Amino acid sequence: MRTLIIISLILFFCAPDGRAQENDYTAHVNPFIGTERMGHTFPGAVAPFGFVQLSPDTDTIAYEKNGAYNPDVYAYCAGYQWEDPTIVGFSHTHFSGTGHSDLGDMLLMPTMGTLKLNPGTEDDPDAGYRSRFSHREEGASPGYYHVRLQDYDIDVELTASERVGMHRYTFHREGPVHVILDMLHGIYNYPEKNVWTFMRVESDRRVTGWRQTSGWARTRTVYFAMEFDRPFHAYGHEKTDSAIYRGFYRKFDETRGFPEMAGRGIRAYFDFDAEKGEQLQVKMALSAVSTEGALRNLAAQVPHWDFDALRAITARKWNRELSRVHAETIDEEDRTIFYTALYHAFIAPAVYEDVDGSYRGLDQNIHQSDGFENYTIFSLWDTYRALHPLFTLLQPRRTHDMIESMLAHQEQSVHGMLPVWSHHANENWCMIGYHSVSVIADAAVKGVYEDDLPRALDACVTTARYGLYDGLGDYMRLGYVPSDGNRASVSKTLEYAYDDWAIAQLARTAGDASVEKSFLRRAATWRNNYDAGSGFMRPRRSDGAWVEDFDPLDTHGQG
Amino acid sequence: MRTLIIISLILFFCAPDGRAQENDYTAHVNPFIGTERMGHTFPGAVAPFGFVQLSPDTDTIAYEKNGAYNPDVYAYCAGYQWEDPTIVGFSHTHFSGTGHSDLGDMLLMPTMGTLKLNPGTEDDPDAGYRSRFSHREEGASPGYYHVRLQDYDIDVELTASERVGMHRYTFHREGPVHVILDMLHGIYNYPEKNVWTFMRVESDRRVTGWRQTSGWARTRTVYFAMEFDRPFHAYGHEKTDSAIYRGFYRKFDETRGFPEMAGRGIRAYFDFDAEKGEQLQVKMALSAVSTEGALRNLAAQVPHWDFDALRAITARKWNRELSRVHAETIDEEDRTIFYTALYHAFIAPAVYEDVDGSYRGLDQNIHQSDGFENYTIFSLWDTYRALHPLFTLLQPRRTHDMIESMLAHQEQSVHGMLPVWSHHANENWCMIGYHSVSVIADAAVKGVYEDDLPRALDACVTTARYGLYDGLGDYMRLGYVPSDGNRASVSKTLEYAYDDWAIAQLARTAGDASVEKSFLRRAATWRNNYDAGSGFMRPRRSDGAWVEDFDPLDTHGQG
Repeated sequence: MRTLIIISLILFFCAPDGRAQENDYTAHVNPFIGTERMGHTFPGAVAPFGFVQLSPDTDTIAYEKNGAYNPDVYAYCAGYQWEDPTIVGFSHTHFSGTGHSDLGDMLLMPTMGTLKLNPGTEDDPDAGYRSRFSHREEGASPGYYHVRLQDYDIDVELTASERVGMHRYTFHREGPVHVILDMLHGIYNYPEKNVWTFMRVESDRRVTGWRQTSGWARTRTVYFAMEFDRPFHAYGHEKTDSAIYRGFYRKFDETRGFPEMAGRGIRAYFDFDAEKGEQLQVKMALSAVSTEGALRNLAAQVPHWDFDALRAITARKWNRELSRVHAETIDEEDRTIFYTALYHAFIAPAVYEDVDGSYRGLDQNIHQSDGFENYTIFSLWDTYRALHPLFTLLQPRRTHDMIESMLAHQEQSVHGMLPVWSHHANENWCMIGYHSVSVIADAAVKGVYEDDLPRALDACVTTARYGLYDGLGDYMRLGYVPSDGNRASVSKTLEYAYDDWAIAQLARTAGDASVEKSFLRRAATWRNNYDAGSGFMRPRRSDGAWVEDFDPLDTHGQG
Repeated sequence: MRTLIIISLILFFCAPDGRAQENDYTAHVNPFIGTERMGHTFPGAVAPFGFVQLSPDTDTIAYEKNGAYNPDVYAYCAGYQWEDPTIVGFSHTHFSGTGHSDLGDMLLMPTMGTLKLNPGTEDDPDAGYRSRFSHREEGASPGYYHVRLQDYDIDVELTASERVGMHRYTFHREGPVHVILDMLHGIYNYPEKNVWTFMRVESDRRVTGWRQTSGWARTRTVYFAMEFDRPFHAYGHEKTDSAIYRGFYRKFDETRGFPEMAGRGIRAYFDFDAEKGEQLQVKMALSAVSTEGALRNLAAQVPHWDFDALRAITARKWNRELSRVHAETIDEEDRTIFYTALYHAFIAPAVYEDVDGSYRGLDQNIHQSDGFENYTIFSLWDTYRALHPLFTLLQPRRTHDMIESMLAHQEQSVHGMLPVWSHHANENWCMIGYHSVSVIADAAVKGVYEDDLPRALDACVTTARYGLYDGLGDYMRLGYVPSDGNRASVSKTLEYAYDDWAIAQLARTAGDASVEKSFLRRAATWRNNYDAGSGFMRPRRSDGAWVEDFDPLDTHGQG
C-alpha cells in the first residue's frame, strides 16, 4: 500500500459492538476486487462465513479439453471473470481465492422468450439461456449483488443468509418467463462430474432435490429446497442420461409437468408470465444433510419474502464482522483495499451444518455438532500462515469452532488424519503438509482452544505418524522426503519439519514432555535437506545422495 | 395337487406356539423349488421377511445386448438358474418370484490361487473368479444354504438374520485366499447401472460402504458393514471409472492398501492365508439408512461369531412362521410343495428399517417408524389377489405394519400415491392398477387395520384421483381408459373399477357414505368396456368407438 496505515486492532468477543453502530465499514468493501484474471474471487452475495455463496458465473469452461487438462479453466475457480461479456446464471456455492475448484451448485437463471435449456457460448450467447451484461449495470456490496440481464431486460438482485440465497427478479418486458434450474452446471466441470441429480416438485411453488458430484471432492452431495413467491404455471426438464434403461417411468411423459425427476444431469425450467415492472422472488436453501434439512434451514432462516430486510440483516452482520478492525488512513483507496481484504478473509471457511446442528461428516454419516458450529473448506496450505493466525486474534469463537470441526474430521477419517485440504465432507488431498496442527497449536498456545488438549495433541500426533501420506513414511524412516518417488520433496521435508515444531509447541502447552521431545527431534529434519556447500535447500535421493540436476520449478508441485 | 389336502388354519397372534415345538415344518421346505427356468426363486439363506436375502448368483447376464433388451436376462430375476454350471458369488439382496428385477448387492466370493477381479463367463469360468459347482454338493433349508466351490475346494455356508448375512468358508487346500467383494455385480445389470460405490476399510477386519444404483428402482442406495472373524493381511481394489479427473487422490497408489475407495464401480479383494481344514467367517450387515445404521444392525443382530447358533435361531423363526398353517396330507411330496409355497410366501415384502426404527422414505429422507415396522417390496399387481389376503389371515400384525408402511409411502410420495410396485424407497411404476387400496380395504373390513380409517381412506381416494397416472385422467373423464394413447386399456379399466369397488368397501367401513357412493359409481365403469354383442370386454377409442382390429396379446402390457 502506498500510504501509511495506522491499524488499531480491537477484539470483540461477545459484547455489542459500538464501533459498528457508529461506522459503516461495508461501504469500504468492493466485492469486484480480485475478479479479474487469477484473483479467484467472486462478486456475489454471501453472509459472513456463510455456506450459501450466491454469485454469477460468467462461463462454464470445461476442466478437460481433448481428454487433457484445459488450462483456461483455472481462471474460473470462483465462477466469475471480469472480462467476460455474458452471465450464464447464478449458482449457490463458490470458492473464494482458491487455486483449484469445484462447486457452482444449483444454477438459477431467469429468462424470457423462447425456452432454451443449454447455456450457450460466449461466442453465441443467443444459442443458450445466458445473457449479455455490462459492468455499468452491475453492482455489489457485502451481502448484495445486482445486474441487468440485457438479453431479457431483467434486473437480478441477490442476497443471502448463511444457508439461504434469495433472488429478486424485476421484469422490464411483459411476456413468458422461464426460470432455469441447471443442475448440470458446475465449476471445473466435465462430462462425468455429475453423479446423480434428483428433484421433486412438492407444490406449485416449492421444489426440493439434490446434486451429487465427483470432482475435487470425490463424493459430494448438496441438498436444496427452493421456493418461489408465486405459483409457476408449468415446468419440465431435460436430462443428459445416455442409458437406454428407463424402467417403468417410460409410461409417463416425464419432460413436462411430471413432479419427480432424477438422472445424471437435470436441466429444469419453471414458467411464469410477467407484466412490465413486475417482480418474482426465489429462495434457495441448501443443506449437506437432506432435503428435509434444507427445508428446515429455509423455515428457520428466511421464513419471509422481504428481500430488503434480509439484505439489511446480512449487511449488519458484515458491518459487525468488519468492525473487528478499525483502520485509520487518509486514503479511501487504501481503506477499500483493506476492508475488501478483510471481507474476503471472512468468506471461508464456511458454516457446514443445518440450523439444528446436524451435518455430514467425512465418513458420509450424519453427525450432530456438540458445543461448536461445524465448518468446512479448510484450505490449510494456503491459510495456516496468515489467515488462521489472524482468526486466532479476530475470530476466537470461530477459531475454537473450526478446531472442533477439524478434530471431528480427524475422528471421522479412516486415515485418522486432520484436514489437509478439506471441503464439503471430503478430504481433497490438495497441496502438501499437515498444517491443521499449526492452526491448533497457535490457538492452544494463545488460549483460544483449551477444551481438551490431550485429545487435540493425540489428533495431531496420529496425523503426523500416518505413513501412507505423501512421503511421510519415508520422512519418518530417513529424516527427509527423498526425491525419488516424490515430487516437491524438499518442500515436503520443510513443511513437515515446521508442522512437527508446531506439534512440539502444542505438546509443551499440553504438558506432554515426551511428545514435545520427540517432535522437536523431528522438527530438526529440515537440516537433512540443507546443502551447506551451496547454502541452499536441496533434494536428496533415498540413498542419501544429493540430486545433481533438478528443475527447481518442478519442486513446487501440488503433490 | 394330486391328493386331498386337509388344511386347518390356525392363527397365532402373539402366544407361544405349541405346534412349532412339536413339529419341524422347515423339514418340508425345499428352497430349490422354482429355481429352474422362469420360477424366479432363489435357494439362499433368508430369515422370514428379512431385508438380507443372501443367495448364490449363477450368472450375470446383461440387461442390454447391442443396445436393446436382452430377453435371456429374464431367467435371472432371482440370480440363480438350476441349469447353470457355475456360481459367480453370493450377493445379499434378491427378489423372489418377481417378473422384473434389480438388486444383487454386495457380492462376496471366496477364491484361492491367482487373484482375478472379474467374474469370468460360463464358457470360460477360469478367466474369472467364478467357480464350477455341482448340485450333489449343494443343499438348502430355511435360513441355510451350502455349496462346494469346486474350483477352489471351498465349502461355503450361508445363514442370515433379518439384517445380517453370515458366511462360513471351509478351506480344503492350503494357500492364499482372496475374498472378492464385487460392488459392480448386480441383477439386471448394465454398464451405467452403478451410480456410485464407496468403501472404507475401518480396520483390518471391518469394512463399511455403500452401493448406489439406478435400475428398476431409479434412485437406490444400500449401505453395508462387513466384518471378518480374523484380520486380512492385504487388500486392494480396481474400479471401472473412465473419467480422467482423479483430483489429488493421484498422489496415492489407491489400488493396494489404501483404505478409502470410491468410484462408479469398485471390485475389491481381501487377502488371507488358509491352512487345510481352516475356516473363515464373514458377516455382512445391510441398512438403507447409513453405514452407521449397518454397524448398529450388525451389533444388535449378530454380535457373535456362532454361525450354527444364528442358523438355529433363523430356523426356529421359520418353523414358527410355517406353523401358522398345519397341513395334513398322506403325501410327503404334497407337504413339501405346500410348505415350500408357504416359505416363499413369507419372503417378501421385506423389513426395511434399521434396528432403531429409522428407514429411508420415498422422499429419500430418513424417517422413524412409529408404532409399526416398515416394509418394502410391494409387488401389488402380483400379490393383491392372493398373497395379501392370505397375510390378512395368517400375518395380521405384519399386515397392519405393511399398511402403515404403505400409508407412510403415500405421505412421502410427491404424487400423493400409495405404492403401485415399490421397492427400496422407490416407486418403480411396474404393472397397472392401484392395488394397495384393495389390500387396505381387505384388512380394514376384517378388522386387522383399524388405527385411522379416515386417513387410510383419504390416502386411497387421493391415489385414485391422481390424473397423471397411467390413463387415470382419461378414465375419470370418460369412464374408461381409451385405447388410443394407452396400452392395456381394457385391463386398466377393469382393474381401476375393481380398485374403486374396494375403496367403496373401505369407505363403508369408515362410515363415509359420500365416498362410498362416489366410488361405487366409478366401480361400474367396467361396463363401458363390455361389448354385449360379442360378450367380451373390448377396447374403445377416446371418441367412444369400439376398436375393430386389435391384437389381444398386445393388451397385456406392463404399462
